[in-house]
Amino acid sequence: MTRKELIQQIKQKRSFLCVGLDTDPKKMPKCVFDLHDPVFEFNRAIIDATAPYCVAYKPNLAFYEAYGLKGMESFVKTIEYLKEAHPHHLIIADAKRGDIGNTSQLYARTFFEEYDVDALTVAPYMGEDSVTPFLEYDGKWVILLALTSNKGSQDFQMTTSSCLTENGEPERLFEKVLRVSQQWGTSDNMMYVVGATQGRLFEDVRKMAPDHFLLVPGVGAQGGSLEEVCRYGMNDDCGLLVNSSRGIIYACSDDHFAEIAGNKARELQQQMDEELKKHQL
Amino acid sequence: MTRKELIQQIKQKRSFLCVGLDTDPKKMPKCVFDLHDPVFEFNRAIIDATAPYCVAYKPNLAFYEAYGLKGMESFVKTIEYLKEAHPHHLIIADAKRGDIGNTSQLYARTFFEEYDVDALTVAPYMGEDSVTPFLEYDGKWVILLALTSNKGSQDFQMTTSSCLTENGEPERLFEKVLRVSQQWGTSDNMMYVVGATQGRLFEDVRKMAPDHFLLVPGVGAQGGSLEEVCRYGMNDDCGLLVNSSRGIIYACSDDHFAEIAGNKARELQQQMDEELKKHQL
Repeated sequence: MTRKELIQQIKQKRSFLCVGLDTDPKKMPKCVFDLHDPVFEFNRAIIDATAPYCVAYKPNLAFYEAYGLKGMESFVKTIEYLKEAHPHHLIIADAKRGDIGNTSQLYARTFFEEYDVDALTVAPYMGEDSVTPFLEYDGKWVILLALTSNKGSQDFQMTTSSCLTENGEPERLFEKVLRVSQQWGTSDNMMYVVGATQGRLFEDVRKMAPDHFLLVPGVGAQGGSLEEVCRYGMNDDCGLLVNSSRGIIYACSDDHFAEIAGNKARELQQQMDEELKKHQL
Repeated sequence: MTRKELIQQIKQKRSFLCVGLDTDPKKMPKCVFDLHDPVFEFNRAIIDATAPYCVAYKPNLAFYEAYGLKGMESFVKTIEYLKEAHPHHLIIADAKRGDIGNTSQLYARTFFEEYDVDALTVAPYMGEDSVTPFLEYDGKWVILLALTSNKGSQDFQMTTSSCLTENGEPERLFEKVLRVSQQWGTSDNMMYVVGATQGRLFEDVRKMAPDHFLLVPGVGAQGGSLEEVCRYGMNDDCGLLVNSSRGIIYACSDDHFAEIAGNKARELQQQMDEELKKHQL
């Protein structure tokens, strides 16, 4: 999916919601366990109920890998279902990969050919040759970790460098990642992960990356505010994909889980519509 | 496997070799393709031929994931075979995982319960809560990326901080990773990845982490020198696991591949024996 198509979907649906498919059998309602592949059936019901209100889905690989080959089968079936039934939704594999060049090439092949998802989250620690192999696929996206939503984001990402930014402030590692990675990819094939919990730091991110889309986890269970993210992070093309996982998919634990998930997604979509209007979008 | 058992294996075998199972069907000899699971059969032959000369195996997940469910079946069979036929070898899953706490917990479960490997490579960018879930398993190891072997290691890992080291030099990111992560784990449950191509920087690594084992890729195809790694990186317990992948497993592309791989591993073992002697080990 191209940047233009993504912006079009956002404007058409009045939503920049990404639904996180962090599907955990321990939290799924009892009713799905009678079915052949409970994880896939849970996903399918959640997808059908939320599709009108979101523009992207983000299965988190950890949740599928944790159940071995069976888990990966559910992942593959989920991707196949999404592509068939909802071909205009962006599919993000949240796998945080990254390795030396020949190995990243293989990961790129896995996610962009074998599974054929639209986007993959990538970790920047190993630098250029660990990231560029993912950028060689037309119409596919690298979503590079910049400033994550968790407490540990303070440990290394905020490290101040002996090098100064244009404003004369010491450059922080996440700012260096934003700056240097723009030599590798563009706003047409690269997004950044910035956690909703980072508040006003979105202003600093936007100084470095005014045009890029940001994938924003951390609204909901992790405590980030949608209003704050939009105030400091939205740009003229929207430029945001805000993810919610647990707040939508586990909103209800009985037979009505899909309906309630749909309602939660619609609530977020309505708030997003308001935010888009505030920004004349 | 405990640190004590690992050191015992190294002394007994006079080797600190790790054989990297970067198994690529495009590079395997024709003869294995007649068998039911060529990737597994190739691994089994390589393992049986090299086991006397090495103390660890390191399958690289990218190579298995690239072939989807079939590839992951070969990975699982390889692990099962290693545990059954060669139970005293350390098994390292090279997967470079790392995510927010609840997700890293699932990855830990996948690799340390579902696959039951001994060690996992982990990326540090997301900080403490992305790493500590892997440290909660007795007898298991986190191998944290510090200073990798690739060209991209220069991009972020060498970034100098505005904070100074004990020697009054600006602290580099890899040094911060070494320093801060020692608040999370010990030399009994944590190792570090340091690339063989980094030469004298092993001295700086040893200033920060004198006791930890280092997993050292980059000897062979990537150009690192075993002699240099040992000169600057070996400690009183050896403290090194030196990995070779391509130089061993693809040394020969005909029916004699396993025999030649065994010869290549024995050559490295003999060089390692010399290095151990030089260090009175």
